Amino acid sequence: MQQLESQILRESLPQRIKTAVMAIGGAEDRVRVRQILSTFFERAGATNARIMLIPTASRDPDAMGRIYRDIFEDMGAKAVEVLDVRAREQGENPLLEHHLENCTGVFISGGDQLRLCEFLANTPFVTKLRSQVQQGKMVLAGTSAGAAVIGHQMIAGGGSGEFPNRSLVEMSIGLGIIPGIIVDQHFHKRNRLCRLISAIAEYPDKLGIGIDEDTCALFSPDGLVEVIGKGTVTIVDPGEIASTSHPDVGASDPFSIYNLRLHILSHGDRYSLDKREVYSQRTGILPSSSSSSISQNENA
Amino acid sequence: MQQLESQILRESLPQRIKTAVMAIGGAEDRVRVRQILSTFFERAGATNARIMLIPTASRDPDAMGRIYRDIFEDMGAKAVEVLDVRAREQGENPLLEHHLENCTGVFISGGDQLRLCEFLANTPFVTKLRSQVQQGKMVLAGTSAGAAVIGHQMIAGGGSGEFPNRSLVEMSIGLGIIPGIIVDQHFHKRNRLCRLISAIAEYPDKLGIGIDEDTCALFSPDGLVEVIGKGTVTIVDPGEIASTSHPDVGASDPFSIYNLRLHILSHGDRYSLDKREVYSQRTGILPSSSSSSISQNENA
Repeated sequence: MQQLESQILRESLPQRIKTAVMAIGGAEDRVRVRQILSTFFERAGATNARIMLIPTASRDPDAMGRIYRDIFEDMGAKAVEVLDVRAREQGENPLLEHHLENCTGVFISGGDQLRLCEFLANTPFVTKLRSQVQQGKMVLAGTSAGAAVIGHQMIAGGGSGEFPNRSLVEMSIGLGIIPGIIVDQHFHKRNRLCRLISAIAEYPDKLGIGIDEDTCALFSPDGLVEVIGKGTVTIVDPGEIASTSHPDVGASDPFSIYNLRLHILSHGDRYSLDKREVYSQRTGILPSSSSSSISQNENA
Repeated sequence: MQQLESQILRESLPQRIKTAVMAIGGAEDRVRVRQILSTFFERAGATNARIMLIPTASRDPDAMGRIYRDIFEDMGAKAVEVLDVRAREQGENPLLEHHLENCTGVFISGGDQLRLCEFLANTPFVTKLRSQVQQGKMVLAGTSAGAAVIGHQMIAGGGSGEFPNRSLVEMSIGLGIIPGIIVDQHFHKRNRLCRLISAIAEYPDKLGIGIDEDTCALFSPDGLVEVIGKGTVTIVDPGEIASTSHPDVGASDPFSIYNLRLHILSHGDRYSLDKREVYSQRTGILPSSSSSSISQNENA
């Protein structure tokens, strides 16, 4: 009830931050309706938004920073700052943490997730970023590589198109914003379901989240994931798997995995991270409780 | 108990037919170990086997018939006959039914499943074929297009690589040997999981069976499916889906589907069509009952 009231409060104060973590599957619309980027902008406080862009994953961070700065300035953000980290020392610079306190939104662009994590994973900056997000003080969005880094276990690379096997996916350590999930992006376009299944077979305590292009999985503080955009979000839930031969087979041999639960969600669908159930406006199926916070979900 | 005894009887008489339906995912090994083709040959009675080849799906049925005839003759089959059906009138010829009574195995080759069904679906020949298989009088194997036709609902074509959507799959009517399943083949190699999910969303009373290349789903009369070969068999079970938006969305729009159950099985794994449970030799998990016949499964 208290939660509902605070929700109403937020709705009536559009300038306030509506905290969330937005995992975007890449190739989001930047020029037409810009539904996902507008959602980020609105949630960051709209014309009161103070946005930090992190283009570190990109090969050309200058150009990438400029693209998103133009977009958010065009939307009317109060301030847009580019944090061009090109060395690990920068990620460890305590001054950056103070910068974060003045931001209402952080946007991490695409590129190579390994480059991003090389400079930023396990730095005081990321600890601060995680804390600010969990305390509801800002919105964090990441697209493509920027989405891949949201979990603790991160898909760093791999193949596609074969049956699931261990060599199909290379895992690394991400930023751990929502540690309980493994994110994959450009999902169905690049045929990555087998890759995500291979990752989940390796880490069956995690929940797999595959995000299509121009599509966003929006993680709210109430423990719900909502789908926004033109594609799908695929949930691979290994919570009931009886067994997998993953640890026992050769790297390129097929492995068995039984009782995966698979949900394919589209725009407007919601999923409860705690209940591991879908809530659809269409069906009216609502998880019986949804009181957890993002930080609680991280231990799921 | 009776079933077990008859099983022991069969094991002790290797020349006898071990009835089964073998759905092969295409590109089976024809030149080296030939594990799958040997299994068909053995089950058809080995040196007592009288095999009918149906190369109708192929663009070059002469060549295709010759390839498999050489293989089974080389293995030592008693007789190999090619049934080169090139018109629907042939499929309706009552003489062909009598031919079937003398066969211990029928092998349907790859090509275009629509061509095969154009000439053979709903003919007296196929009615007889189905009856012979269900009565345990012969082994039926189909590879690629020959596997696609095994269900009643058949995947005739479609795309790959996008998120699941209605236009991703074109359905048609197959031979209905095991009506309760929808088969897809060349499965992970051609990224067809989304296509099979799209088919299953359209026919949620069916069970989806995706078969990799050089891999076989062997349907035994005891209601178990066993995996043979180097890839995987993927089971898409919609038995618990709460809801799908499949009927309500545009042909190329993403649809939602919740609570699909997914099993990825590899060599030696078994699955009970009745219990919809996996039996793995590795885990020792055994369905509590497996007494149905293939014909019973067809109503599943």
